[in-house]
Amino acid sequence: MTVRNLDHALAPRSVALIGASERPGSLGTLVLGNIVSGWFAGAIYPVNPKYTVLRGLACVAGVADLPTVADLYVIATPAQTVPGLIAEIGAAGGRAVVIITAGIGSQDQLRQRMLAAAAQYGVRIIGPNTIGLLAPLVGLNASFTHIPARQGSLALLSQSGAIISTIIDWAEAEGIGFSQIVSLGDMADVDVSDLLAILADDPKTSAILMYLESIPDGPKFMATAQEAVRRKPVIAIKPGRHEAAAQAAQTHTGALAGADGVVDAALRRAGVVRVKHLEDMFTAAEIHARFKPLARGRVGIVTNGGGAGVLVVDELLDRGCIIAELAPATLAALEGVLPDNWSRSNPVDIIGDAGAARYVAALLAVADDPGVDVVLVMNCPTALAADAAQGVVSVVENGLINGKPVLATWLGQHAAAAARDMLNAAGVASVDTPSKAADAVEMLTLWHGARARLQRDANKHEVVTVDRAAATLVLAEVARQSRTMLTEPEAKTVLAAYGIAVPRTLTVDSVEAVGAAATDLLAGSAAVAVKMLSATLTHKSDLGGVVLNLASAEAAQAAAQAITDRLAARGVFDQLDGFSVQQMIIRPSAEELLVGITTDPVFGPVMMFGAGGVSVEVVRDTTMELLPVDAGLAEDMIGRTRVSALLAGYRNRPAADHQAIVLALMAVSQLVIDFPQIVAMDINPLLADAQGVVALDARIEIGLQDEAGATSGRAPAL
Amino acid sequence: MTVRNLDHALAPRSVALIGASERPGSLGTLVLGNIVSGWFAGAIYPVNPKYTVLRGLACVAGVADLPTVADLYVIATPAQTVPGLIAEIGAAGGRAVVIITAGIGSQDQLRQRMLAAAAQYGVRIIGPNTIGLLAPLVGLNASFTHIPARQGSLALLSQSGAIISTIIDWAEAEGIGFSQIVSLGDMADVDVSDLLAILADDPKTSAILMYLESIPDGPKFMATAQEAVRRKPVIAIKPGRHEAAAQAAQTHTGALAGADGVVDAALRRAGVVRVKHLEDMFTAAEIHARFKPLARGRVGIVTNGGGAGVLVVDELLDRGCIIAELAPATLAALEGVLPDNWSRSNPVDIIGDAGAARYVAALLAVADDPGVDVVLVMNCPTALAADAAQGVVSVVENGLINGKPVLATWLGQHAAAAARDMLNAAGVASVDTPSKAADAVEMLTLWHGARARLQRDANKHEVVTVDRAAATLVLAEVARQSRTMLTEPEAKTVLAAYGIAVPRTLTVDSVEAVGAAATDLLAGSAAVAVKMLSATLTHKSDLGGVVLNLASAEAAQAAAQAITDRLAARGVFDQLDGFSVQQMIIRPSAEELLVGITTDPVFGPVMMFGAGGVSVEVVRDTTMELLPVDAGLAEDMIGRTRVSALLAGYRNRPAADHQAIVLALMAVSQLVIDFPQIVAMDINPLLADAQGVVALDARIEIGLQDEAGATSGRAPAL
Repeated sequence: MTVRNLDHALAPRSVALIGASERPGSLGTLVLGNIVSGWFAGAIYPVNPKYTVLRGLACVAGVADLPTVADLYVIATPAQTVPGLIAEIGAAGGRAVVIITAGIGSQDQLRQRMLAAAAQYGVRIIGPNTIGLLAPLVGLNASFTHIPARQGSLALLSQSGAIISTIIDWAEAEGIGFSQIVSLGDMADVDVSDLLAILADDPKTSAILMYLESIPDGPKFMATAQEAVRRKPVIAIKPGRHEAAAQAAQTHTGALAGADGVVDAALRRAGVVRVKHLEDMFTAAEIHARFKPLARGRVGIVTNGGGAGVLVVDELLDRGCIIAELAPATLAALEGVLPDNWSRSNPVDIIGDAGAARYVAALLAVADDPGVDVVLVMNCPTALAADAAQGVVSVVENGLINGKPVLATWLGQHAAAAARDMLNAAGVASVDTPSKAADAVEMLTLWHGARARLQRDANKHEVVTVDRAAATLVLAEVARQSRTMLTEPEAKTVLAAYGIAVPRTLTVDSVEAVGAAATDLLAGSAAVAVKMLSATLTHKSDLGGVVLNLASAEAAQAAAQAITDRLAARGVFDQLDGFSVQQMIIRPSAEELLVGITTDPVFGPVMMFGAGGVSVEVVRDTTMELLPVDAGLAEDMIGRTRVSALLAGYRNRPAADHQAIVLALMAVSQLVIDFPQIVAMDINPLLADAQGVVALDARIEIGLQDEAGATSGRAPAL
Repeated sequence: MTVRNLDHALAPRSVALIGASERPGSLGTLVLGNIVSGWFAGAIYPVNPKYTVLRGLACVAGVADLPTVADLYVIATPAQTVPGLIAEIGAAGGRAVVIITAGIGSQDQLRQRMLAAAAQYGVRIIGPNTIGLLAPLVGLNASFTHIPARQGSLALLSQSGAIISTIIDWAEAEGIGFSQIVSLGDMADVDVSDLLAILADDPKTSAILMYLESIPDGPKFMATAQEAVRRKPVIAIKPGRHEAAAQAAQTHTGALAGADGVVDAALRRAGVVRVKHLEDMFTAAEIHARFKPLARGRVGIVTNGGGAGVLVVDELLDRGCIIAELAPATLAALEGVLPDNWSRSNPVDIIGDAGAARYVAALLAVADDPGVDVVLVMNCPTALAADAAQGVVSVVENGLINGKPVLATWLGQHAAAAARDMLNAAGVASVDTPSKAADAVEMLTLWHGARARLQRDANKHEVVTVDRAAATLVLAEVARQSRTMLTEPEAKTVLAAYGIAVPRTLTVDSVEAVGAAATDLLAGSAAVAVKMLSATLTHKSDLGGVVLNLASAEAAQAAAQAITDRLAARGVFDQLDGFSVQQMIIRPSAEELLVGITTDPVFGPVMMFGAGGVSVEVVRDTTMELLPVDAGLAEDMIGRTRVSALLAGYRNRPAADHQAIVLALMAVSQLVIDFPQIVAMDINPLLADAQGVVALDARIEIGLQDEAGATSGRAPAL
């Protein structure tokens, strides 16, 4: 995907540095030094009225004095000069600018003026407040990093310049290189999604690493991230995991949906691998710089120490990785080359005195096993640590043996460091602990899973049939009355229109009519409930406005009279609009579930599913998914909850109707997509048992209408 | 604590090496080389009939030829020679032997003969199959490690020699030293507990690290580990976390209690800090080699990069660590020394261009804050990384500023490695990522918490009053009948004797008597249940032998008749012993809990507590604790379960009677201690609500008696 006016910015043929300098310690000096120190072959134009020559290059006084239009402009001048410079660049025909300058704020209108100038000419801005841009494939470091980045195939996008410095400092020591590095800064114009779109298309980029502190435009991010993940691995670290949901919420779903939970759902949905620790970014870089992702990762382990093997097996099983079962032929081959006391199973313990020859023999045998997808070779330090590493180096070609990735784990530091340097220098993937080895094995296979989930056929199992007109009728009437919260019967009517079973409910306007309604309902159920109806009084139970378990028409009518008397006694009789008479549902062995909708300010409508009932906030067994939710995603959601174990049946209890739950989640998804004015919703409990599902209670909240009659709220679903 | 005949073994004044050699690559050569390469000042006696001089030392032919008794004998000769050598050493007066030799098995009686010889003379054996023993404080490396260990204050015990090599290799590079290192090997005689006891007493050991693959004697380990933890931190890695419970179980508790869960409970109970990853052992070593443990760890953070601060805050909050709130005076002091755009809160972001001076000023201010217990200083790589590290080195004394521990985290590798080396060389604690920094902060405070839990007054809140005679009567009768499983009424009688409420139950032997019993019970409850009694038929429900919710004496009697008829129809009428008539308990808002006992082969009786009911195996919300369980431990158990959130009350539901649950756990603990023949038990469900607890169903299993009349089973509780 191309992004307007950024065509040549990431691999420019010419770069102008406005604010270039030779004053020690200034940003203009640092950036110019980095640009001229590389092997960038394009034209370099320093711009600064104080100089005529800088670092041997002709320096011009202003943008207008440049001999030609540069592909990329880098600004490192004081904040107040920036809006004017953008206009000058635009007027000169420039279209891509990196603004390193910080402190371009809204209070003094600098930001607004900068953006206005950019809009006038179609100038695209990366930054401000960035450390700059590195294009290692053209030898350009237009940033003030302390070292350049090597050439390679990884792209790195970061909202923190310090994290860029950290990752390239680490990568330099590991011999890992980059295709592109962009410090995103304040993302006043160009945002992470724009760059993600370009990098997704870039054939020289094998994987994309991101450090994100915020995501500015949810739908744009989701679309570009999904597109990128279809082509290559995308790995993100997004801190702020402990931020709580900010807003007060009227629904269980709103109260339970933390901002970070939505981010988690969004990244998972996009297929982006979210990692927690900086180490994981290093592991991702190590893996994706060296290997093609694997569809599956059965691990064969060669170690000179049993303890190391025991530890790594624990770590691998923690992550759900698969310990390969070695074929009889492999065991026989190993029997021929290993000492008598070898382990005779995977992990292959080749004994503490193993040197290069024994490592080589074991590695070749294990890599030859058709049941092994990846080989992990470990060393506990002995006097032979370096010799053993040399053995590994001698049989690994381009990181592989027999086409299979080899991961080396030389434990320790004193003897191990030299061995690891040797492995690194030879291009062998190397980590230094069992847990990092297991992380690396896991990382090898994550992308295939993520991409497969993206490529699943949507809606392959089921289609929800809906009576959209019936729902429209209810929602329009609520909006006409300028209400935001549907009554319970209204909410249930809407759900029923989307195929979700609700208890039969009759709405009547007098005590007398309650009896007849009850007679009707009692023909099909053992008991009814009578509830007050009021557009203004919401806490029905607290007012004594709900009476359950009425087994006769007489009892129902008496209950309605009692409700009337209680409201009269409180002086709120005039707010009683009538009664609902509802069939009582008795399903003693059903599970109580919650299905909810909340609207995230960034990502729009989010569905929540999990264990329901009145204890939902203390049980906290819920999961979230962005809309739309199709059958596959509904099944994923169910599978992520603890309550799914109960739904699957146990002992003498049959499984709940799985398909009915899936359909209910799809129906809610469709409902909220069809009616964007729905901003929040709770179905709690949704009873589920072998007979199907039924929504016992529901709340639906719609956005307020503005004066023009348009409903406020949110962008349409993805 | 002293351990018989090991008084001088760990810091010997003389050492004899049997099998000393100069044959290249042999163990005897490697160990002799390590012994003579150190600064060990005691006598060294090589023993080998093939030599008269080895490495300049007089070599004798046999043990009998030694000029004196050595404090420590090290054996590195073939397996078949070992039993004879032990006898020779014993006869010569030797008492402590490290056997490096592997392959001393039971098949050829070598192991038995070795132990018999040791027993005859009171010789203590470390090993066999060890890499040896290192006593760095006396300059002795009596092992075949590839490098010696530095002098320091950490002790290391390991069942894997490879893990010892790994840890000392890592520690050498970090400048961390040891007081004692013992490779435990097969633990044929001296086990981990013996050495733990000695090291607990050793004033030169500040903390004990352990790598354990198995724990041979649970009660001995618990006693010594608790004693050690009262004095110093004990940290253990125990792999095999994914091993499942081996035995088939008759109880829910048995089915749920995995072997690793019991290990977890045991280590927690002993106050041992169990860590999962090899990195955590390194972190523990780094922390305990350099600092005294802290009672609390409010963290002040100084960083030159905002992104690093954001990442470390996430990591600290993941671990429940506390981010210090800086005092106004601290903020004012920082305002005076930092550039205008500093963060003005904790983490203190001193901006990317910070050098030594700014680091020093910020560190002094933060360490001066009375609300800061530990200082974390971070660096994202810049050209000033080494300069900044030099600044840190200039103000840290013995690892501290203002008496507070300082942890340095220099991110990256290319520029960071040199800075970290500088920090290491100056004795500044240094880790390389935010997650390790957070691990280190957490590690600083874990011991105080563990020790405090050990020192809590036992039974401070409540004492269980019991009718031991009543329980004895039931259990004796069951044993007399050679049964192992109590009937439900028997189990409930036992529980009632220990103060746990059970539904009133009457046992009768005829259909006619059921009516009278029901009349009696219906005076105090709305309904009764009638259940068949049979010592031989166990699946009562499947036989139609249980009828619930009987509201009249007539109905109860009819139900008993129906049960009789059903059994007769199946031809098992003769196995019907009578009926139990039970009060029905209706507590609709009570939680169903499980209290169980299982007997672990290593650790003895273990209590399980958690969510109960028929779905207990799928809900999997349980926790375990070794017996005895006092009030504090009972509260800990409750607090570790998810169901505790429900028990605390929510919405309109009042909290369950916490004290009643605590008392029930204490009562079960007391019961199982009083009657060691009880090997397994389930109370499921134990209903708990605001009115208290009641055991609705219970199973109790006792061990089989042997012919002499003694009950088999287990060692007494701790």
